[in-house]
Amino acid sequence: MLTREQVAKAQSIAREYLQKAGIVLSPTEEIEVADFGLNDLDNTGLQLVTYVNTDRVCAKELVLTPGQTCPEHRHPPLENGYPGKEETFRCRYGTVYLYVEGEPAASPKAQPPEGVYTVFHEIVLTPGQQYTLLPNTKHWFQAGPEGAVVSEFSTPSFDESDIFTDPRIRRIPEIAD
Amino acid sequence: MLTREQVAKAQSIAREYLQKAGIVLSPTEEIEVADFGLNDLDNTGLQLVTYVNTDRVCAKELVLTPGQTCPEHRHPPLENGYPGKEETFRCRYGTVYLYVEGEPAASPKAQPPEGVYTVFHEIVLTPGQQYTLLPNTKHWFQAGPEGAVVSEFSTPSFDESDIFTDPRIRRIPEIAD
Repeated sequence: MLTREQVAKAQSIAREYLQKAGIVLSPTEEIEVADFGLNDLDNTGLQLVTYVNTDRVCAKELVLTPGQTCPEHRHPPLENGYPGKEETFRCRYGTVYLYVEGEPAASPKAQPPEGVYTVFHEIVLTPGQQYTLLPNTKHWFQAGPEGAVVSEFSTPSFDESDIFTDPRIRRIPEIAD
Repeated sequence: MLTREQVAKAQSIAREYLQKAGIVLSPTEEIEVADFGLNDLDNTGLQLVTYVNTDRVCAKELVLTPGQTCPEHRHPPLENGYPGKEETFRCRYGTVYLYVEGEPAASPKAQPPEGVYTVFHEIVLTPGQQYTLLPNTKHWFQAGPEGAVVSEFSTPSFDESDIFTDPRIRRIPEIAD
């Protein structure tokens, strides 16, 4: 569980990374801080801004601090007929080590934090590079030593339906009052 | 009709605006130059980079030089059941004067170039501001005096099916050899 102070600090740091990426937020836009219920934000966490999430399309900016990992998960098909989220990650700043299903890297450039990680096919994204993930593909990603800002272009997000490999994880954050 | 020289010059200028916006392209990414068949690129035209356009989602960067206008058009439903393109414009650099259907502005901040323009409900976007257009809504937009860079997050693009108010317009460019 995050405290309000931890959230405010993470939001402030994320704003600095967005500035480094040249990305401007409007004064009313909120930065979401996710610790995935592990209470170890520096290692397992994500900061994100959702620009739009209609019933047809979604766009977000994702911010990771140096070495921070968004833990392994997939976006499954839903019972209402939604075939699952398709998403493209485009690196805007820093380096992102992205791991997906497939031939594992012999010497992965990133080491996962404590948790359950099962896919190690490596894609390295630097600014201007992108990768498209089909629905229901297991993936996780970690920022390099400069941190990272990543634009996500996708079909609609239903974050509460994401399936994490680590059963301890809770996507929707709990924040202490 | 654009000459290859005109295209190369417009691409080079667009790259400068993308740099001002802090947006990095990979070396293989192409900038499309559209003059909409009017052969008056400085006034009626658009430069664009398509990051992704799958059967489910599309993302582009749009670049306009100072005062350049993307002419009035709409994205209709298609016969295959596609309900038409929904798009969100997010300003990254400069100012965009966006005009859509609705109560016309008493004193529009932009004057359209020569052509056929029928909608004048005004939305002004500066960096960090965005607007979502529903399908089949007539719209046009013009950059302010600094030019503009706009991210577009949308459902799939079928540019060849766009309907322009000005019957002279051809969306798919013809380039002289």
